[in-house]
Amino acid sequence: MTIRVAIAGARGKMGSEAVKTVYKRDGLELVAALDYKHVGESLSELEIFPPNLDVPIYTNLTQLISETMPDVLIDLTNPDSVYEHTKEAMLHNVRTVVGTTGFTDEQLEELTSLAKTNKVGCIIAPNFAIGAVLMMKFAKEAAKYLPHVEIIELHHDRKLDAPSGTGKKTAQMISEVREARRQGHEFETETMPGARGADFEGMRIHSVRLPGLVAHQEVLFGGEGQMLTIRHDSYNRESFMGGVVYCVETVMTLEELVYGLENIL
Amino acid sequence: MTIRVAIAGARGKMGSEAVKTVYKRDGLELVAALDYKHVGESLSELEIFPPNLDVPIYTNLTQLISETMPDVLIDLTNPDSVYEHTKEAMLHNVRTVVGTTGFTDEQLEELTSLAKTNKVGCIIAPNFAIGAVLMMKFAKEAAKYLPHVEIIELHHDRKLDAPSGTGKKTAQMISEVREARRQGHEFETETMPGARGADFEGMRIHSVRLPGLVAHQEVLFGGEGQMLTIRHDSYNRESFMGGVVYCVETVMTLEELVYGLENIL
Amino acid sequence: MTIRVAIAGARGKMGSEAVKTVYKRDGLELVAALDYKHVGESLSELEIFPPNLDVPIYTNLTQLISETMPDVLIDLTNPDSVYEHTKEAMLHNVRTVVGTTGFTDEQLEELTSLAKTNKVGCIIAPNFAIGAVLMMKFAKEAAKYLPHVEIIELHHDRKLDAPSGTGKKTAQMISEVREARRQGHEFETETMPGARGADFEGMRIHSVRLPGLVAHQEVLFGGEGQMLTIRHDSYNRESFMGGVVYCVETVMTLEELVYGLENIL
Amino acid sequence: MTIRVAIAGARGKMGSEAVKTVYKRDGLELVAALDYKHVGESLSELEIFPPNLDVPIYTNLTQLISETMPDVLIDLTNPDSVYEHTKEAMLHNVRTVVGTTGFTDEQLEELTSLAKTNKVGCIIAPNFAIGAVLMMKFAKEAAKYLPHVEIIELHHDRKLDAPSGTGKKTAQMISEVREARRQGHEFETETMPGARGADFEGMRIHSVRLPGLVAHQEVLFGGEGQMLTIRHDSYNRESFMGGVVYCVETVMTLEELVYGLENIL
Repeated sequence: MTIRVAIAGARGKMGSEAVKTVYKRDGLELVAALDYKHVGESLSELEIFPPNLDVPIYTNLTQLISETMPDVLIDLTNPDSVYEHTKEAMLHNVRTVVGTTGFTDEQLEELTSLAKTNKVGCIIAPNFAIGAVLMMKFAKEAAKYLPHVEIIELHHDRKLDAPSGTGKKTAQMISEVREARRQGHEFETETMPGARGADFEGMRIHSVRLPGLVAHQEVLFGGEGQMLTIRHDSYNRESFMGGVVYCVETVMTLEELVYGLENIL
Repeated sequence: MTIRVAIAGARGKMGSEAVKTVYKRDGLELVAALDYKHVGESLSELEIFPPNLDVPIYTNLTQLISETMPDVLIDLTNPDSVYEHTKEAMLHNVRTVVGTTGFTDEQLEELTSLAKTNKVGCIIAPNFAIGAVLMMKFAKEAAKYLPHVEIIELHHDRKLDAPSGTGKKTAQMISEVREARRQGHEFETETMPGARGADFEGMRIHSVRLPGLVAHQEVLFGGEGQMLTIRHDSYNRESFMGGVVYCVETVMTLEELVYGLENIL
Repeated sequence: MTIRVAIAGARGKMGSEAVKTVYKRDGLELVAALDYKHVGESLSELEIFPPNLDVPIYTNLTQLISETMPDVLIDLTNPDSVYEHTKEAMLHNVRTVVGTTGFTDEQLEELTSLAKTNKVGCIIAPNFAIGAVLMMKFAKEAAKYLPHVEIIELHHDRKLDAPSGTGKKTAQMISEVREARRQGHEFETETMPGARGADFEGMRIHSVRLPGLVAHQEVLFGGEGQMLTIRHDSYNRESFMGGVVYCVETVMTLEELVYGLENIL
Repeated sequence: MTIRVAIAGARGKMGSEAVKTVYKRDGLELVAALDYKHVGESLSELEIFPPNLDVPIYTNLTQLISETMPDVLIDLTNPDSVYEHTKEAMLHNVRTVVGTTGFTDEQLEELTSLAKTNKVGCIIAPNFAIGAVLMMKFAKEAAKYLPHVEIIELHHDRKLDAPSGTGKKTAQMISEVREARRQGHEFETETMPGARGADFEGMRIHSVRLPGLVAHQEVLFGGEGQMLTIRHDSYNRESFMGGVVYCVETVMTLEELVYGLENIL
């Protein structure tokens, strides 16, 4: 069976990668793009795509659905549009794979309830990089047995914020299974402030910023006489595409809304 | 509740560490040692233990059980003795934690059946290092999503065999969820034989041997634009003791035989 | 002082990166391109360059030199052309920075002698990645004190040959300061062939090939109770450009031919 | 030629390791120990040494020298004693290898001058771990070409101070060849204080403390499209012994005082 796919946000960075990925992938067929302009054109007419990409562009989702009958809508637009798209798609029994965060709690509840009522799958994935999601999932599991944890996240030096979102998210996930605890020596002192990093319930988070780096993270677990280290290296945007495909294939088997790739791995 | 523990093989390398660990640990009480000699003495009379270790030594397990009433027998002796000890302990409703491999299939079946009938827990753990077991467990799970795998195991240069047992075991566990597949370029050639390592169903295993190293392993998973790496470093025998304690505590809640620490983590 | 630079091979992968690098770099001025076609045009007329890149293209090197008076010619073409270009440039007292290997011994001797006679600098650099060259240089120095060495090189799985050129070159450089020696246990055995990697005078070389990887290498040195590891990660072609600039600046101070970036770091 | 060695501080942690190392090593002969007590005894009479270690103990260095004629005195005592020992040894033309820091500038000047006048070698080595000293030396050299640096040092969680002495020393050595520079994004912000680590002239130093760790350090250099990483792992006190032996052999060829192992590697 071929899964019929529509993509919203096809001209964005993630979206244009997704277009190429779905187009090439056996078992998937790209049947339409949803956009707020370029209606009536084809992706092949846009400069960023190769001329053979003959996929119609729609502005109206209902029309898109009735004319191209997609099984799955991949939505890589902004939070505002995503909520409306997802709701409408589900009302028409079209499954959705969403790569944006930023839903309100009420919106999430409504979509969750709608998915259950209509028995239509929906996956909302703040992070599509399967390797990164596995790292976080494993880190959460390891912390049950090896509760002394430090996180080192390493990014290019154009990054503005420290620690990274993934660094914080990892610490939060670990804190769900680990009680806050003091780490390091009771009388530990920093002779240079900041040496021991940021403190999240006793876990230390260290942020390295250097040119040359892309996006990397190590989670270190120490126990008597041993260390366990889980590391993820992300080199480019392609790292997200495996996750997108995995979600498209998995959402076909779901009859509810799932938040977070870690819950279907 | 304090768990009453007896140890078989107390004079061995692992056993003497276990004695110290159980002795110090809150919630555990070391009530007896099982040995084939030194009967009637106390561990405190043996040179390798401190003089305050007043724990009686028995040669006869039935007598040990009736006089000291242990909840758990930790058996760190050789395969021959372990089978007899485990069987006898279970017949007396004493739980066992076993650190030896080398059971025959028949012995394992008999012990499994006995555990079920008597509803008495038994854990057989070829590897007590929790970090190493987590590494293998995570590797098996990651391979479902990122099936391109290579293993690098690194040991001191006094090690005789390559690859290591853990290296092979990791590859075997991965092969349970991953079909054999060719890795690397179709026309790949070694200009120096051995460069690409050992081949286990397409997974490559590389064995590094250097003075200074202890026991380390990395499992590398490659996907488009990303890498996931799981690494374990074992620095000394203490790394096993966390696992021994975990098994003693966990076996109290079991009514069957479990083979492999990974199945209770 | 601004260094006037001409580039041969400007349309190639390396060459076009070099064009952009020299163009942007303070202290360097891109005055001409040498090509076998497109004569009389400007780089700005080629599709791969931005329209403001107003740099004349020449087919004849003598004419290029007399009309644009470069201080340095960067040659990123193939071995055949490079020899002729370099010779002619030096005869006109133009310094050269060359990124190709493949000279015959006689050609190298002739160019070396010509550089000395004319007191004109020339740098031939098989590898422009400063980090990789430093790794090899440090590895050679470390091996004097820590002679137990293993090399792990890791590349994408589209690479055809194993070990990599850099892996072999590193082993060769180390062998200049280290006598061949057996490493590992005297009675070491491979239970799976290839586990211990390729053997270069006792040093073991391991080649990892996975999707997601780019070009990476670790050199591991083991000593009693310690390990020293030198690692280089190359993520993209930009990693060469720092070396190109460094060579252009350094060649201005030389009056002889230098082979290998390691000899001027 | 066998080098005759005396050791001061033989009963200390480092000293007793040095005794064993010198005793076993071909080309070295342990001829005496200097102590403030146990005079007239032999090391073999002390509990911590094996009974065959028949090496006389002296309290008076002059007497030790005249009776046992050592070529080299290894001094692993405290700073107070070391100054007196070193001075006296040099006056008797005995070379010294010293493992303590804590000399005043005047003492160092006096010893340096005395070594030159008497043409007698002396090595003062704050760190005997050859791998760690190479790491610092290479880091200093690499920073000339790749000036974006961060340091991650990792130690067991019983360590009181952060950053480690080696971490600071590495940053200081790098600062001798690198001007202070801001690293990271100009508008970088820490959403959790300390995330970016300690700041040493723009270099960031991160201190990880976990059970299981021993003493490790990574120096990371980032450049366009590449990373260079130099890592040292120290697993136990044996890691110092290679450096002690190297110093004993090297000091025989010196006619002056050298401060820091990095200056003779």
